[in-house]
Amino acid sequence: MDRAIAERLSALGLELPEAAPPRHPYEPVTRLGAVLFVSGQTPKRGGAPAYRGRLGEDVDVEVGREAARLAALHCLAVLEAHVGLERVEKIAKVNGYVASGNGFVDQPSVVNGASEAFVDVLGEAGKHARTAIGVSWLPGNVPVELEVVAQARDGA
Amino acid sequence: MDRAIAERLSALGLELPEAAPPRHPYEPVTRLGAVLFVSGQTPKRGGAPAYRGRLGEDVDVEVGREAARLAALHCLAVLEAHVGLERVEKIAKVNGYVASGNGFVDQPSVVNGASEAFVDVLGEAGKHARTAIGVSWLPGNVPVELEVVAQARDGA
Amino acid sequence: MDRAIAERLSALGLELPEAAPPRHPYEPVTRLGAVLFVSGQTPKRGGAPAYRGRLGEDVDVEVGREAARLAALHCLAVLEAHVGLERVEKIAKVNGYVASGNGFVDQPSVVNGASEAFVDVLGEAGKHARTAIGVSWLPGNVPVELEVVAQARDGA
Repeated sequence: MDRAIAERLSALGLELPEAAPPRHPYEPVTRLGAVLFVSGQTPKRGGAPAYRGRLGEDVDVEVGREAARLAALHCLAVLEAHVGLERVEKIAKVNGYVASGNGFVDQPSVVNGASEAFVDVLGEAGKHARTAIGVSWLPGNVPVELEVVAQARDGA
Repeated sequence: MDRAIAERLSALGLELPEAAPPRHPYEPVTRLGAVLFVSGQTPKRGGAPAYRGRLGEDVDVEVGREAARLAALHCLAVLEAHVGLERVEKIAKVNGYVASGNGFVDQPSVVNGASEAFVDVLGEAGKHARTAIGVSWLPGNVPVELEVVAQARDGA
Repeated sequence: MDRAIAERLSALGLELPEAAPPRHPYEPVTRLGAVLFVSGQTPKRGGAPAYRGRLGEDVDVEVGREAARLAALHCLAVLEAHVGLERVEKIAKVNGYVASGNGFVDQPSVVNGASEAFVDVLGEAGKHARTAIGVSWLPGNVPVELEVVAQARDGA
């Protein structure tokens, strides 16, 4: 891993999770020119959902934010394992899907947990455009799923 | 603003809303080569939701279309404020997220309010690919949220 | 159609559906440099939904997979009709939206029907990054909708 990023993670007390290969027939990340498409990432630990449930029901905003932060670390782990974070110029776009029931309409506060993680770890390069929406149910009953489009460094 | 676009807006009786900065830690728009990613836009006036509720419940298709049109104007306002509409070659892709309850399955008619706005304002350059889906709940209880990928003009 | 692709379709016993023009004011596909954005495709036959209902309610996983497979063939049909499959370098990204009620959280198994179709038909070029989420309702009450970003071949 790039030393500056490793030091920032360490200073933040964060560790990237292992980038487990998808258990389904797709790729963790694909590249189209300088565009990197990262497959949807959920908040897992040891291959299993670390959080379960929906916002507005059994998950509150603070726990949703933690789940979003963990999902963001999985996005970074995929980029580190398959591209190398030092070859990532920028996080261009983040889509945050929040499992929302019972009239929950504060998706932005949940997805902030991810947005802050990208900036904490990557600094200026982590600043992104974003969409946050509430969906009905997510794979494995996780509360949040993230999708990232990133930019590869020239020549990387 | 580009004069031709200003004249078209005026002829349509439309005005671009103010492009308020996001209140959360993300950027209104990012650029990756010629690709412009616009953050999710909702139908607001003066910073607050101008429409609330879900299709199939307390919002009907006609009101949903108006909300989609207003959200589209916000997308254009973000592009005008941060890029300049004269530097936008094309609206390439629109995702329309429609808050849908109670078996509502006419998302396309709602998102048409946005599709028509892009073509009304930008003409040929406003013609886009599109996805329309029904989601559970949206930020601030708005009925529709839009996400846009646009193309920057060469050298712009 | 490219002969190798035609032979593979034939060996699989598959036929591409007709790429019907959208009935709404948007394009079936747009191009931004080498990036092809395909509009959301649903599992239709003869212009009407071939499957209706939601996972977790009136559609089971096996039927959902068939619906996803048919929607994938529509994505390929759009690319064949408007670009030519021989000019498609790669399926870069697939978003699978699964209409999910009643606690259904196995969206990945449903979207696998699409992922497998892309690889079956295009081989290595069909391998993609993917996001699968559960949404509330989809247009025409279909159980699944797909969105594809593809890469055009250099100079194509």
